[in-house]
Amino acid sequence: MAEKVVECVPNFSEGRNKDVMDAIASAIKATDDVKLLDYSGDPDHNRSVYTFVGKPEAVVKAAFNACKVAVQLIDMSKHTGEHPRMGAADVVPFIPISNVSVQECVQLAKRLGELIGKELFVPVYLYGYAATRLERVDLSEIRKGQYEGFFDKIKSPQWTPDFGPSEVNVKSGVTAVGVRKPLIAFNVNLNTDDIKIARQIARAVRNISGGLRGVKALGMKLNKSGMVQVSMNLVDYENTPIYRALELIKVEAKRYGVSVVSTEIVGLVPLKAIVDSAKYYMQLDNFDESKILETRLYE
Amino acid sequence: MAEKVVECVPNFSEGRNKDVMDAIASAIKATDDVKLLDYSGDPDHNRSVYTFVGKPEAVVKAAFNACKVAVQLIDMSKHTGEHPRMGAADVVPFIPISNVSVQECVQLAKRLGELIGKELFVPVYLYGYAATRLERVDLSEIRKGQYEGFFDKIKSPQWTPDFGPSEVNVKSGVTAVGVRKPLIAFNVNLNTDDIKIARQIARAVRNISGGLRGVKALGMKLNKSGMVQVSMNLVDYENTPIYRALELIKVEAKRYGVSVVSTEIVGLVPLKAIVDSAKYYMQLDNFDESKILETRLYE
Repeated sequence: MAEKVVECVPNFSEGRNKDVMDAIASAIKATDDVKLLDYSGDPDHNRSVYTFVGKPEAVVKAAFNACKVAVQLIDMSKHTGEHPRMGAADVVPFIPISNVSVQECVQLAKRLGELIGKELFVPVYLYGYAATRLERVDLSEIRKGQYEGFFDKIKSPQWTPDFGPSEVNVKSGVTAVGVRKPLIAFNVNLNTDDIKIARQIARAVRNISGGLRGVKALGMKLNKSGMVQVSMNLVDYENTPIYRALELIKVEAKRYGVSVVSTEIVGLVPLKAIVDSAKYYMQLDNFDESKILETRLYE
Repeated sequence: MAEKVVECVPNFSEGRNKDVMDAIASAIKATDDVKLLDYSGDPDHNRSVYTFVGKPEAVVKAAFNACKVAVQLIDMSKHTGEHPRMGAADVVPFIPISNVSVQECVQLAKRLGELIGKELFVPVYLYGYAATRLERVDLSEIRKGQYEGFFDKIKSPQWTPDFGPSEVNVKSGVTAVGVRKPLIAFNVNLNTDDIKIARQIARAVRNISGGLRGVKALGMKLNKSGMVQVSMNLVDYENTPIYRALELIKVEAKRYGVSVVSTEIVGLVPLKAIVDSAKYYMQLDNFDESKILETRLYE
């Protein structure tokens, strides 16, 4: 059995004080079997994002350690910032990367939720694939009203927290813990400077306007190169793989006599996403990540 | 810096006695920072093959430990078998897998060669990319005459060993230590049962008859499916990538109104080989293995 890998990308309500952000990073780094890949803060949003990966249990531990530091050092009653927020530890998503199911990540989210509720005295809402009610699937639904609004919102039976106290923690607010799939930022550049064409194609391929289920897309102008781009988020690469989005863009581009010049993936991508597309184009039978030598090294 | 990974695939002149084969395997497994992926023996050839991977220094150590056991337990003066052979530790190739150059592997081969020569008293010839003379690049040139012939061959100045004694070790023969690139076994199935077409295409794509530099190819009949296959070894996937061989086969197949039904990779493949082909088909800019999340886990 190859190793299980879970990713966690928590957001904390501090994007200005470097000491606080570094203290949260240290809490993650100090946890065994976890690797902090990146973190950064945005002063306008007054918010920071951390990306770390590791074994399932270790990722829960690191997430809890980070939340603990955030709850100690951040005071939500004094927090301002442009980005909507509701807690010091604002949102903690678990993301299945390798050899881990969404259901296993849901268990991790519940374990973390329980810990945050019991030990940090912060109300917790489960969201995404971990949601316990339909209206809690979408994070923005939970976050409506933000920190300030939650003092009332939490009293409604519909918004009883999944874990922790039934009143807002004045210093720390409330926290959303959930599960989502990895998101792939995939951009396709076209040999035209006509933004209307990029927009038409984006409309054709994205879910909301009749396209592929797992695709969000926008048409954009690339000022440097004089090309236009279909900029996508693939939100479920296992059911809507990269190649399908790309090939559909080619099909639509043909309508305008336009073709694909190049593509790019922004940020990191799970191995399976690349393997799935390689398999399609190479017509490979009986192939998966386990046939890649490097994946055997750390079994 | 991502971790350095070297593969080693030594062949020993024992394919019948399970105790001896297991003892060699144990010597590899007992070495830290090395992982034995596979081993198997062939009774007709009376020969066994081991595949292991690990950090450069560790792979040298494991290879030496394995050779030591082979030299102790195998007696070449009594060896018979169909496969050409010249020593108990017959041939030890190092193969660069990740973040390691061919030149670094040549240094590893020289270190192992010196150890085998000095400590096991076995003459060693460097071959492949590690060869010190043109006529030693090709393993089959070195092996000509086999164990029995080496008692004379070694006396010729042209065949003075690179390391170790200048006389054959009667019990252990001589050993070839070298460096080669990873070999990818890639098969392409065609929607025809006409073996002549597979043979024509094989001839067109392989190096020896005018095709691609890094390709060896044969036309084969697949009895089960009624299809034919172009069966290839890609011996230098960095300079002759998988996609180029596949696309050239499609070009040649068109000539006969034939198309590709499916492909397969036999055994393991380096990540870079899949990434390179995915990049080609997806027209991906600025992408390499470091953009794959899993490769960040073990940096």
